[in-house]
Amino acid sequence: MELRAKTVELLSEPAEELPVAVGKKTPTIALEKEIGIRPVTLRTGRSRAIFKLQQGIVRGVRRFLEESSFTELFTPKIVASGAEGGANIFSLDYFGRKAYLAQSPQFYKQMLVPVYERVFEIGPVFRAEKHDTARHLNEYISIDAEMGFIDSFYDIIELETAMLKAVFALLEGECSGYLRELGAALPPIGEVPCMRFREIKEKVAEKYSRKIRDPFDLEPEEERLISRYAKEEFGSDFIFVTHYPAKKRPFYAMDDPEDPKYTLSFDLLFRGLEITTGGQRIHDYAMQVEKMRAKGLDPADFETYLMLHKYGCPPHGGFGMGLERLLLMLLDEKNIRTTSMFPRDTLRLEP
Amino acid sequence: MELRAKTVELLSEPAEELPVAVGKKTPTIALEKEIGIRPVTLRTGRSRAIFKLQQGIVRGVRRFLEESSFTELFTPKIVASGAEGGANIFSLDYFGRKAYLAQSPQFYKQMLVPVYERVFEIGPVFRAEKHDTARHLNEYISIDAEMGFIDSFYDIIELETAMLKAVFALLEGECSGYLRELGAALPPIGEVPCMRFREIKEKVAEKYSRKIRDPFDLEPEEERLISRYAKEEFGSDFIFVTHYPAKKRPFYAMDDPEDPKYTLSFDLLFRGLEITTGGQRIHDYAMQVEKMRAKGLDPADFETYLMLHKYGCPPHGGFGMGLERLLLMLLDEKNIRTTSMFPRDTLRLEP
Repeated sequence: MELRAKTVELLSEPAEELPVAVGKKTPTIALEKEIGIRPVTLRTGRSRAIFKLQQGIVRGVRRFLEESSFTELFTPKIVASGAEGGANIFSLDYFGRKAYLAQSPQFYKQMLVPVYERVFEIGPVFRAEKHDTARHLNEYISIDAEMGFIDSFYDIIELETAMLKAVFALLEGECSGYLRELGAALPPIGEVPCMRFREIKEKVAEKYSRKIRDPFDLEPEEERLISRYAKEEFGSDFIFVTHYPAKKRPFYAMDDPEDPKYTLSFDLLFRGLEITTGGQRIHDYAMQVEKMRAKGLDPADFETYLMLHKYGCPPHGGFGMGLERLLLMLLDEKNIRTTSMFPRDTLRLEP
Repeated sequence: MELRAKTVELLSEPAEELPVAVGKKTPTIALEKEIGIRPVTLRTGRSRAIFKLQQGIVRGVRRFLEESSFTELFTPKIVASGAEGGANIFSLDYFGRKAYLAQSPQFYKQMLVPVYERVFEIGPVFRAEKHDTARHLNEYISIDAEMGFIDSFYDIIELETAMLKAVFALLEGECSGYLRELGAALPPIGEVPCMRFREIKEKVAEKYSRKIRDPFDLEPEEERLISRYAKEEFGSDFIFVTHYPAKKRPFYAMDDPEDPKYTLSFDLLFRGLEITTGGQRIHDYAMQVEKMRAKGLDPADFETYLMLHKYGCPPHGGFGMGLERLLLMLLDEKNIRTTSMFPRDTLRLEP
């Protein structure tokens, strides 16, 4: 269209010219620099599309969970103790007392299971992890869900699979233009394969002639190989790795009664990256107290959390999914800073 | 219905009896105690209903804003500087540097206006205010929206009024059972009256024979009288108080060109309580730098924020609304701790 303006009213004027061109889809500057001037570079078509997809994912998740009778929560981010244990927690002075930034809404979402049976929260979580990698952020958005009256953690796996299907269907329907703009292809998702931690570790070591170094955890390279295995053997971009070692799981994870060295828990790997941790939680008071003690924790430090178990709660489980990681792998990008508007890493507090 | 069970399977068992009855709708214990055992007291029908209404409000807000072409944001909560100024900010150690907890997403939502034109975020904000009142929380959920290409801040007032109407319509349709359970009545909302700060202060002083003590701010008692005035004179539960003194507004507020002692900003009072602050922001770089200096701030401390103005942005404005406050007044409750699942005040970090 050609426009012939009769009058032009100047509403606003920049003080300087843009330091980079925002019309082009692909930024031609290094990622570090690009992030440093995000108030400008977010104006590119590429960034606009990335975070429109973020909104699409979140809308799809909410729509699916609300239709599945989940109640949305807003739980506190300033907390008295960490849910995930370890040293990876930010602390702050709270009116003369020591407080922490929530590593996850774990305790709270569990507490709400006896209230609403099914709950979810989409909000920020904080991890004071010192390592600086292409897949870690010190603040990220976690999609958390928790569900009561489960028969086993496979109910959670089914829930998450159905959720992902719903999200991809929404993206297909409402965000296909943005996907095209970014050259991203939605993964096919049907029945997602499930394999036990110990078993897949061995399969991958065998198939790709790799030595198992850490029998209790997955190294990044192993995660990539497991996904490669899933693609080659099952044609799937996703794979659930189940029955993680108890040693590497938090105190609220339920042990496998058939072999308590392992837990009734899982990770979901998507194209080589872990995007979810989930599982069944302990609902019995005595069992939870005992496991805390076995992990060297004092149950007295978790008095309010333990009210959940003490006063009765149904068998339950849930998952936490990293929004930036899901989007990262969906776009086949290399660095998680690409899928966070204003990423926080060990060196970066601005913009 | 009468059920005759052939078998009963015990899924889970409490370790102790509940310390309070959860079947009754009204708790018979003091609020402080009730909050202390929220993992139990949230199980009451009353609490269930309160936070179902919270979810309803949030769903209504999102639905309205998304239908009005607003893009949802997730902005960082760990930040390098405060947006609202003052000492009311929590600080923390961030890998050896001093960081803060975001008092509002103000800077970020403004930065996104040139990207998406209309943006919103619903998420936690943190205020280290020392006063312990029935209407303050140190962490609360803020509903933030920001919109470009406005003609004046009255566009924001119209937007917020339309949003509230949409929210109440949704509550009426989807949550009427919860409203009935809590004996809450939705307020009638039509055209909401707007009055200038200076004018309403005088009117109220005159009508209710009250002396003006602080000419630059509203005291809680004054807010109640202004709402009483709005009810008596206009039959409205809401009133916008416009043109707040520049002295009491942050550096990003646009001054009224006709009288720069006042700003193009507003508060929304609902049944005696301020639930929103909003207004037009400065979009011109030189004007923003100058106002920062006039407020004793160093523009160099706001380098990334000022990229917004430096590289051009449309005239814009927005508002922030406290979710807990809106719900508090909707339910005609007395204490804001009632409408936060796990309230944070100067003394309370748990549960």
